[in-house]
Amino acid sequence: MMSKSIRTTLAIILAAGSAASGARAAQVDADRPLIISKQGSFFVGGHDVQSDALSTIPNFASSGTISVDQVYVRYQTPVRPARYSITLIHGCCLSGKSWETTPDGRMGWDEYFLRQNFTVYVIDQAWRGRSAANPAAVNAVKAGKAGADTLPAFISAGHESAWTIFRFGPEYPKVFPGMQFPLEAQGEFWKQMVPDWGYSMKPPVPTVPALSELAQKVGNTVLISHSQSGIYPFQTAMISSKGIAAIISLEPGACPAADYDMSALKNIPVLVLFGDFVDKSEAWTNRFKGCQEFVRSAKAAGVTAELVSLPDVGFHGNSHMIMQDRNSLAVAGWLGEWLSHHVRQPSSRQ
Amino acid sequence: MMSKSIRTTLAIILAAGSAASGARAAQVDADRPLIISKQGSFFVGGHDVQSDALSTIPNFASSGTISVDQVYVRYQTPVRPARYSITLIHGCCLSGKSWETTPDGRMGWDEYFLRQNFTVYVIDQAWRGRSAANPAAVNAVKAGKAGADTLPAFISAGHESAWTIFRFGPEYPKVFPGMQFPLEAQGEFWKQMVPDWGYSMKPPVPTVPALSELAQKVGNTVLISHSQSGIYPFQTAMISSKGIAAIISLEPGACPAADYDMSALKNIPVLVLFGDFVDKSEAWTNRFKGCQEFVRSAKAAGVTAELVSLPDVGFHGNSHMIMQDRNSLAVAGWLGEWLSHHVRQPSSRQ
Repeated sequence: MMSKSIRTTLAIILAAGSAASGARAAQVDADRPLIISKQGSFFVGGHDVQSDALSTIPNFASSGTISVDQVYVRYQTPVRPARYSITLIHGCCLSGKSWETTPDGRMGWDEYFLRQNFTVYVIDQAWRGRSAANPAAVNAVKAGKAGADTLPAFISAGHESAWTIFRFGPEYPKVFPGMQFPLEAQGEFWKQMVPDWGYSMKPPVPTVPALSELAQKVGNTVLISHSQSGIYPFQTAMISSKGIAAIISLEPGACPAADYDMSALKNIPVLVLFGDFVDKSEAWTNRFKGCQEFVRSAKAAGVTAELVSLPDVGFHGNSHMIMQDRNSLAVAGWLGEWLSHHVRQPSSRQ
Repeated sequence: MMSKSIRTTLAIILAAGSAASGARAAQVDADRPLIISKQGSFFVGGHDVQSDALSTIPNFASSGTISVDQVYVRYQTPVRPARYSITLIHGCCLSGKSWETTPDGRMGWDEYFLRQNFTVYVIDQAWRGRSAANPAAVNAVKAGKAGADTLPAFISAGHESAWTIFRFGPEYPKVFPGMQFPLEAQGEFWKQMVPDWGYSMKPPVPTVPALSELAQKVGNTVLISHSQSGIYPFQTAMISSKGIAAIISLEPGACPAADYDMSALKNIPVLVLFGDFVDKSEAWTNRFKGCQEFVRSAKAAGVTAELVSLPDVGFHGNSHMIMQDRNSLAVAGWLGEWLSHHVRQPSSRQ
């Protein structure tokens, strides 16, 4: 763990870097005690299913009822919370851990936004982390009741392929010049990765209605998605705009397609944000272009929507893991500024 | 979420209940802001493995390196931390969520001990929650490279069987008289349950060396285990007694056997704690007897060891989920008292 003096110095460096880049300084003192009004965790979504494939060992009954598709939510509320909250939604092969302490031991966005007086909600997507998967499809095969081809896709991203997807460099282990991701701590980052069942799920995945339940329960929350979850806030808005204060989509795996019903975003400002080196990756260039088209259509339909490339606003060297890059708090400070200018006053929202 | 007045009232009721039972009142005001010196998360344990079964879909490479067997740890430190910390280790089919907000919305032990000025570490066991599982054994079968019989045990406890194991009643849905578990909120509890890969693992499971790494890293920590993890602190002490201030085993699935090397516990006070209705369950009666034998042998070998039945010290109606029962904070207060009398001063520990 990091010493207090190193943490203080880092906070100062980050603040200076942010000021230099033209964004408001990320005003946060990591050494100041954190004062929390309340904290805890709960679930949204989920339902009961009956199964006769819960177990293949004698100690546990194979038949019974389990609860699945729920989404784990951890929250912290400051003493004087801002009028809207922040909900952090991780991406592929990761869990809510993405937003906590960075691999090199710096403050995560969960605490940064809390220290900026936002109530912060961090979720684990359905079937991942602390949100239960259903073991029945695996056990049915083990019990000989179903063929091996019925096993769900259960994927882990290897370090080598993730290296390219996360744009640490053009290919493992080459590094893009000026890379902001703390690669000296990559071992701690690889430990954050968890296997992902999501690629067997048909949309809308259970995380989406759960996010809608969360937004309606807590009210006026900014949905910040990352990568694979990029489309979820837009799908959530299709269920209801209720409770959604804004959408920030960090490097979405996909933006909504041309046939998306823009009326869902009538009162929801949208920011799509990309890091650096996008032009060095064909896959990311294509995703970026898709998002450009979406934002263009959204604006034409009257939606307050914006696509921003971090290098265009003075942040250079960002990987796909923007929330963990060395300048992560400066970027978070910039996002806070964007929100302060774009989230409507409660009086004008219904 | 619960209103402030209900939370205040609850805190008062709990304090009163605790005083009535003869234990020191659980002095905690849930409405007082929580002041945290630092918080965050990190991993202990883990190593890299090569695999050619990481994926069965084209979007992700099937060959590569992943990190597995690491253990996720979340921590919070108060401004003036006590001289020893608390590490909370969940049981079967659950995650670190067990120790957070209770199903009926009350404060969990994670926050209770923090408010009593302990640094608190909450883990997810290896292969569960935010601690990655390895998908290779499933993918090898799906890819036709291995037979269905090689699939690991992947079990979920159904509500009906868990009801009996957790001693909510003699059988689902009958309830033991005076039951302290908040069954009116059982839906939220069932959502806490996650599938468990652990029954395919040979001991020592990776959680054990990771716990040893944690204890040695943070120093002077009390390992509080629950149920299936009950044996882990004792196995951890076999690796090294370094960093272990005490062991509290809540309703262990098993206590160490007669051939356990008691010298491992030379400087480590041990408490094994059981709830109510143990005599109503044959399985739990057997576990209780096994622990009685262990404690007897430990004491004979000079270990400071104690087995306590909650009804014997004035707490009645506790289920297996002691940390979530209605009197959970009063029991935690009693544990705090026990620790204050049993954890040695740093000067006498090496």
